[in-house]
Amino acid sequence: MSTPSQTLTLPSAKPYAFQFPLTTTALIIIDIQRDFVDPGGFGSVQCGNDEIFSRARAIVPTVRKVLDVFRSVGGHVIHTREGHQPDLADLPAAKRLRQISSPHGHHTMGIGDQGPMGRLLVRGEYGHDIIDELTPWPGETVIDKPGKGSFWGTDIHRVLLARGVTHLLFAGVTTECCVTTTLRECNDRGYQCCVLDDCTQGFDAQQVATSLDTVSGQDGLFGFVGTSADFFTAINESLTQLTPPATPPLLGDDGLPPIGELISRYKKGITSPAEVVNFVFDRIEKYHATDPAVWIHLETREKVLQAAEKLASRYSGKPLPPLYGVPFSVKDTIDVNGVPTTAACPQYAYTATFNSPAVQYVLDAGGIFIGKVNLDQLATGLSGCRSPYGITHSVFSEKHISGGSSSGSSVSVGAGLVSFGLATDTAGSGRVPAAFNGIVGFKPTKGTVSAKGLVPACRTLDTITVVAPSVPDTRKVWRIIARHDPDDPFSKLPHTLVTWKVDFRGPRLGGFTFAVPPPSSLEVCTKAYQDLFSQAVQLLRSCGGRLVEVDYTIFEVAGDLLYEGALLHERMTCLGLEFLQTKLEELHPVIKALFGGALEKPPSAYDVFRDQALQIQLTRKAQQTFDTLRGGIDVLVVPTTTQHPTIEQMTADPLRLNSKLGTFTHYANVVDLCGANVPAGTYIDELGTRLPFGITILGGAGYDAKVLDIAGVAEATFKEAFAKA
Amino acid sequence: MSTPSQTLTLPSAKPYAFQFPLTTTALIIIDIQRDFVDPGGFGSVQCGNDEIFSRARAIVPTVRKVLDVFRSVGGHVIHTREGHQPDLADLPAAKRLRQISSPHGHHTMGIGDQGPMGRLLVRGEYGHDIIDELTPWPGETVIDKPGKGSFWGTDIHRVLLARGVTHLLFAGVTTECCVTTTLRECNDRGYQCCVLDDCTQGFDAQQVATSLDTVSGQDGLFGFVGTSADFFTAINESLTQLTPPATPPLLGDDGLPPIGELISRYKKGITSPAEVVNFVFDRIEKYHATDPAVWIHLETREKVLQAAEKLASRYSGKPLPPLYGVPFSVKDTIDVNGVPTTAACPQYAYTATFNSPAVQYVLDAGGIFIGKVNLDQLATGLSGCRSPYGITHSVFSEKHISGGSSSGSSVSVGAGLVSFGLATDTAGSGRVPAAFNGIVGFKPTKGTVSAKGLVPACRTLDTITVVAPSVPDTRKVWRIIARHDPDDPFSKLPHTLVTWKVDFRGPRLGGFTFAVPPPSSLEVCTKAYQDLFSQAVQLLRSCGGRLVEVDYTIFEVAGDLLYEGALLHERMTCLGLEFLQTKLEELHPVIKALFGGALEKPPSAYDVFRDQALQIQLTRKAQQTFDTLRGGIDVLVVPTTTQHPTIEQMTADPLRLNSKLGTFTHYANVVDLCGANVPAGTYIDELGTRLPFGITILGGAGYDAKVLDIAGVAEATFKEAFAKA
Repeated sequence: MSTPSQTLTLPSAKPYAFQFPLTTTALIIIDIQRDFVDPGGFGSVQCGNDEIFSRARAIVPTVRKVLDVFRSVGGHVIHTREGHQPDLADLPAAKRLRQISSPHGHHTMGIGDQGPMGRLLVRGEYGHDIIDELTPWPGETVIDKPGKGSFWGTDIHRVLLARGVTHLLFAGVTTECCVTTTLRECNDRGYQCCVLDDCTQGFDAQQVATSLDTVSGQDGLFGFVGTSADFFTAINESLTQLTPPATPPLLGDDGLPPIGELISRYKKGITSPAEVVNFVFDRIEKYHATDPAVWIHLETREKVLQAAEKLASRYSGKPLPPLYGVPFSVKDTIDVNGVPTTAACPQYAYTATFNSPAVQYVLDAGGIFIGKVNLDQLATGLSGCRSPYGITHSVFSEKHISGGSSSGSSVSVGAGLVSFGLATDTAGSGRVPAAFNGIVGFKPTKGTVSAKGLVPACRTLDTITVVAPSVPDTRKVWRIIARHDPDDPFSKLPHTLVTWKVDFRGPRLGGFTFAVPPPSSLEVCTKAYQDLFSQAVQLLRSCGGRLVEVDYTIFEVAGDLLYEGALLHERMTCLGLEFLQTKLEELHPVIKALFGGALEKPPSAYDVFRDQALQIQLTRKAQQTFDTLRGGIDVLVVPTTTQHPTIEQMTADPLRLNSKLGTFTHYANVVDLCGANVPAGTYIDELGTRLPFGITILGGAGYDAKVLDIAGVAEATFKEAFAKA
Repeated sequence: MSTPSQTLTLPSAKPYAFQFPLTTTALIIIDIQRDFVDPGGFGSVQCGNDEIFSRARAIVPTVRKVLDVFRSVGGHVIHTREGHQPDLADLPAAKRLRQISSPHGHHTMGIGDQGPMGRLLVRGEYGHDIIDELTPWPGETVIDKPGKGSFWGTDIHRVLLARGVTHLLFAGVTTECCVTTTLRECNDRGYQCCVLDDCTQGFDAQQVATSLDTVSGQDGLFGFVGTSADFFTAINESLTQLTPPATPPLLGDDGLPPIGELISRYKKGITSPAEVVNFVFDRIEKYHATDPAVWIHLETREKVLQAAEKLASRYSGKPLPPLYGVPFSVKDTIDVNGVPTTAACPQYAYTATFNSPAVQYVLDAGGIFIGKVNLDQLATGLSGCRSPYGITHSVFSEKHISGGSSSGSSVSVGAGLVSFGLATDTAGSGRVPAAFNGIVGFKPTKGTVSAKGLVPACRTLDTITVVAPSVPDTRKVWRIIARHDPDDPFSKLPHTLVTWKVDFRGPRLGGFTFAVPPPSSLEVCTKAYQDLFSQAVQLLRSCGGRLVEVDYTIFEVAGDLLYEGALLHERMTCLGLEFLQTKLEELHPVIKALFGGALEKPPSAYDVFRDQALQIQLTRKAQQTFDTLRGGIDVLVVPTTTQHPTIEQMTADPLRLNSKLGTFTHYANVVDLCGANVPAGTYIDELGTRLPFGITILGGAGYDAKVLDIAGVAEATFKEAFAKA
């Protein structure tokens, strides 16, 4: 079944009908662990009443039915488990001791004690796990929580934000404890919540009933209480209202379908990973004639077919992981085990001995690795014209640059050769080529995707980036690769990342604020770009955006710091001074000119400290710009670049023009922003070529999900507007 | 009344007797705002039943009585207020719309709407404030919360940790909503909670009753439910059991009493700020004969007496703020409005035009500024022998160094001239002189106290520091000055700071883990220091400490980075390269030698980037050392310094010996630790002089409260042990 996109209603919910948009609703199943519903676990100790206890177990078939239906429509599913590390380091003394110390209680065993199903409420024990009927599927989130609530000591809030969740349907045990504690926490953060009353139970009948009354009482103090019957009816109605999807077209000239659609075909058995692999290789071979410079290393068809068949057999008859059979490319600065990493610089090349974590997570999620793609040498450049492996061109025009440094990544996606690419972005390398190829390029917040196994350009700035045809596909991949890595010293600690309240209406109805550069700053763009940008701004205003003013000079000064100041020389340090000095003559002529010039004028240590002090000040100010609790904006919107040069123009003026192309991208990492290029129309240039235009939606550090929420609305609005036009 | 230190009991609490140590228990009064208990507010809209509503108002006299008694014994008081910013930027759409959208409800007005007491639940409005009967006193915490719980969007967890709170007594409204939501959040974080059932009410009788049953049911699922009658009895019993305090001695030769004792005398009218000021100035004049080098700028007695009288008249008949009439010194690198800041360098001096925030907060809390104190020139040094304003000596010995750079700060406190000092610490400047003067020197986590108005030594490392005679006094001051400053770009954002679960038993009974340097690293210390350190380690083991091993090389490598590597040159950049170059000849000879040498060998930009990359790696590893959820330790314990040189030894070998003294302090700021010197005994040196020894208890970034918890236990244990000996 496809996902119905309309809003569903539980008409008999209390205090009144509960409405929820299926695409942004999560089903959250609280703590249906053996320890809470099976005999001999912590729950039976706690409950101490066999009849009531078995009533708690009795909700499982209904929960299972709700889960099945919810899964069938592709809804977000979150499971929680209460429990503790084996060393009990996350178990508060009060939790361990209070109940068991009761002189007249029935707590004969405490958390961590050995019970018939293993140590009570300890992770990894049999009793701690979710019951068989409700075993989580790949891609569903499991929140391991040390509290009765789900927010202390977990990243559930960011998990929900990452998925764009606004509404929650609650099931689980116990109503009076973990269910309503979590619901209260969700409510404070803005989520619209509804408990399904026949999908929850507890260990005290009066407390269960009153807990639910408290949720929905006083006109909905904490939320809504509905029934599974209403839920089934609502889903069925929504499915019958949907136009039945036409038989999906076979893989065709349009390239690969969206990831969700591809997975849907796999689930239905319409296609197989092997078929997709053959399709991809046919397409790559064909595109080679158009542009031979895309790939630096292409896996063999045979090897990939083997991988595809292994994958198919592994998941035969089982639930599929979220990137099952999805082909992807990797920029050749990111390590893939056993494959050379060249950084488009044969003098630098080495064979990788492990997968960079992002690659590993994609593979674990079922992704199919196709090959390593071209880039501007040493990830230095925004043109795509600085590689010894050839010059890639835009998928829109053989005469126009593809953009760089993630040139091959963006072309491989734009040409429909793969479903997505793992690229990088230090100063615009992921966003600019996305704009020049009409796709999405999302640079997450620095330190939210591990940079282990990534050739360093500037270690403090480099960010692994996703390029994909659409915002939803980008988001699917980003959610999988964005994980804290204790081995990457630049990886931000999860507890330090910002969270924010949710607007259950979403950005289109709930509104968002955005700012743009002042007119004087936009003059650097061509007329066509200026016009398209104005049009994009108007469209953003039509879909919930409210335009406000900010001090844009912060960003301009930060942009200048990168290449006009001392910070450039971090690049020289990271790439290796000795390497650059000894190999300078062998480098690509443009890179040689750039680095040679820099090496001749090394800044002093004092210059570095001075520029860094300014960078820290600007970063603080930039971040304050995005603090909506202090009058800040949700997002900053800029044209991704200034113009679309031809390859001829670019090669004629390789340094100055490159720098100009980065006008609106250079500062993002300097002041720790995240941002996504979103295609925003096309135009016909003076040569008569139709070319794509892109805007970048930028947010403060950690606001990745918000940027993607707004980028999603923008993308849909632009598509609709340009389809009409 | 003094604070009873014993544990109190509410014998008839459910599910069984609730025990709480008064010194670590907070009374938390939830949302007794006009909007919730007075007619015409949000509560009356929400309740919709006059009889029930007036029942909620009826608890106020009992709550007031509990509050009075709790205040009289010096307990921690927390008030919460539910409400929103005037722009409603913190109001989730669901909260605004859900209740008011109910088709059959009584929510005729919503949050933000104009009611008879102002806009409903909007901060700054009359209706939003706490009712007159319960108006917060200075020094009590008010938590403004956008949620029904108190943890979303607030810093309450860190506020409670900062105060060392382990137990909470709950009062307030409404039981079913904000009271139990907050209690559930506290419970997850390890606080031991008890609701006083006659101090809470709600808007639905059944929900109130069942909410309390749910707290205490199942052997104490979330906590305890007690009564105010038990509370009053327990307090009275504890007071009668106390040995009645002897009439406090007059201000005498021992110097100033502890801050709590001083405030207690003020409250009883035994002394006045003016009397204390005269005492302080007499003592300063007398100490001048012993050591004339302590002060760089001393306020006049007349001026300070005026300030004292103004303070006394301002608070006449009113509750006193937490530092009322407490005299303090300020290191002469910290700006005090209208007073010269010299940094012990007349060539650098300027007159400050505002108070550094820490100074301002102390003044706001009633502190009395006495003067600016001496330091090693430009805050560079650990000896106290590098100032053109003279060499201070240890308060223990005229022959021995005071330590630096916060020399005057530590001497002014050690000699009992002031109650505490605001000092600084970049590489040990706050900790080393504290050790040499037998006092506490606490260097908070960098960026938790504003560095605005502080002469920069190394901007990325400089930290304002508290020196005081004891851990409790240090903590009182630290709690007042540790606030986020949006104007200080190095100020850490509050949401990024770590929090952790509480052990209600405290470190002595609940235990803590600590590590020490390996024997080879301790060999740099004198025999006396090694012996005293061993003794301190044994004592720590006797009071809850469990010694574990860690990789100490991280810290040693980080220490070397500071002065052996390129990082030193940040100091040159911050002080001003031009200033140093033009004024070099006029500087103190030792500083001249140090900076002159550094200027002759400037590192390259590449050196800086390389060293910083290493610093970032080491910082991550160091922080992981303190992650107790991943096998880390609570604290690292080191001797604060290696030996106690004489002034003669120090002046004979000013650079090498200085560097040696910083062996155990240099790395703390490099890898972002916090730490407190705690006096740990004395010894008699070869000259026959009794000298103090100190250990430093170090924690990871943000673990300030944990360090102070453990430092407090250590201090008490050491005092007891050495009093016996």
